[in-house]
Amino acid sequence: MKIKVASKILDANERLAAENRKIFRNKGVYVINLMSSPGAGKTSLLENTIRALSSSIRLGVIEGDIAGTDDAARIACLGAPVVQINTGGACHLDANMINDVLKELPLEELDLLIIENVGNLVCPAEFKVGEDMKAMILSLTEGHDKPLKYPLMFQESSALLINKIDLKPYIDVDVNKIKRDALSLNPSTRIFEISCKTGEGIGEWTAWLKGLIG
Amino acid sequence: MKIKVASKILDANERLAAENRKIFRNKGVYVINLMSSPGAGKTSLLENTIRALSSSIRLGVIEGDIAGTDDAARIACLGAPVVQINTGGACHLDANMINDVLKELPLEELDLLIIENVGNLVCPAEFKVGEDMKAMILSLTEGHDKPLKYPLMFQESSALLINKIDLKPYIDVDVNKIKRDALSLNPSTRIFEISCKTGEGIGEWTAWLKGLIG
Repeated sequence: MKIKVASKILDANERLAAENRKIFRNKGVYVINLMSSPGAGKTSLLENTIRALSSSIRLGVIEGDIAGTDDAARIACLGAPVVQINTGGACHLDANMINDVLKELPLEELDLLIIENVGNLVCPAEFKVGEDMKAMILSLTEGHDKPLKYPLMFQESSALLINKIDLKPYIDVDVNKIKRDALSLNPSTRIFEISCKTGEGIGEWTAWLKGLIG
Repeated sequence: MKIKVASKILDANERLAAENRKIFRNKGVYVINLMSSPGAGKTSLLENTIRALSSSIRLGVIEGDIAGTDDAARIACLGAPVVQINTGGACHLDANMINDVLKELPLEELDLLIIENVGNLVCPAEFKVGEDMKAMILSLTEGHDKPLKYPLMFQESSALLINKIDLKPYIDVDVNKIKRDALSLNPSTRIFEISCKTGEGIGEWTAWLKGLIG
C-alpha cells in the first residue's frame, strides 16, 4: 500500500519533470540540479560561479530552502536573476515546485539555470526537476565514508565537487578514498577539488561548465 | 489526497512510537534519538560517550544508515551492544524499524540506548521512534545559518551539540549566532560546544547525561 502511493507520486513527478525539461530546451537553457548536505557550500559555489562567468554566460538561480531567503539575497547581490522557493518542511525540491516558479525567471535571457536544492544528501537525489545534469558538493569535513553511506546521490551526480579542500591540513580525511568510492559508484563522474574560500579549483569547474553549454 | 496519506503514515508511526516507549519504560532504559547532517560526528560522539561512561552506565546503540555497517563496527569495537539498521534508501528511522530490532538488544541490561538516526537535518525530526529525548549535532563547518534554515530539527532537540569546535580558528563561523538562533527556536535547549577530536566539552555532555539518567 505504502509502496503503491510512493510509486504514484514518483510517476507524477517524472511527468512534470519531462514538461519542465521541454520548456528549458525550447528556451535554450542548460539546467543543473545542485545538491549537498546542509552547509557543504552550495550557495558559496554559486557565488563563485556567477563571479567567474558573469561576463560570458547568463546565469539564473532557483534557491530551494525549507525556510528563509538568505541564499536568494546572496545571489541577488551579485545581480543574477533568482527565485526563492520555501518548501515549508519538505526535504527536497520536486518538478511541480520548479514548474510553479518558472514564470518568475527571464528564461529567454539565460544560458544556464542552476537549481540549488534543499540541503539533504538523501531525498533530493530521488526527484527529477527537469535538469540536464545533477551535480553534488561534498564538504571535505563530512568525512571519507560518505559515498558508500549515501550511494544514490553519488550515483546520480555527473559532477562531484569536494569543497573546503583548504581544511585538509586540519582534519583526518582521505580524499583519495572519497574519489575511489565515488568513481566505483559512478565511473563517469567528473570530480573537482575546490575551495569556495580560497578559490582553488573554481577555474577548472567553470571551464568545464562553459564546455557543457558550448 | 497526498496530505491525507501523509497524515495516516504519521498516525501509525505515533502509535508504534508509543508502544516502543512503553517497552523502554518497562525495561528501565532511557532513550535518546541522535540526529544530524551527514558527517557532523554522530558516531564519533557515541565513541567518546561510550569511552567516558562505560564504567558507570550501561550503554547500547542502534545505528541507522541507508547502507553499510561501518558505524556499527566502530561501536562494536568498544564492546557496547549494537544493532545496525539499513534503511535501504529511506531517509530517516521510524518507530516500526526500531520495534523490529528491539529483540536483538539486551534491554534489561541497559541504562541508556542511543539511536543514531540517518544523517539528515530534515526528515528524522518528523518521526518519533519512542525516545525520551531528541538530541542533535551541528558541525561548526556547516555554518551559522543552519538554525533558521532547518528550524524543526532545532525546535525538536532538547540538546544541541556544536561539534568540531577545534576548527573555529580556520573558518568564518559565528558560534554566538548559532546559539542565539537555536535558543530563539527552542529556549530550553541545552547547548554544548564540543570536539570529538580533542575531547573538548565531552565531560560536560557526559555529566549532563548522567544527571538525566539519575
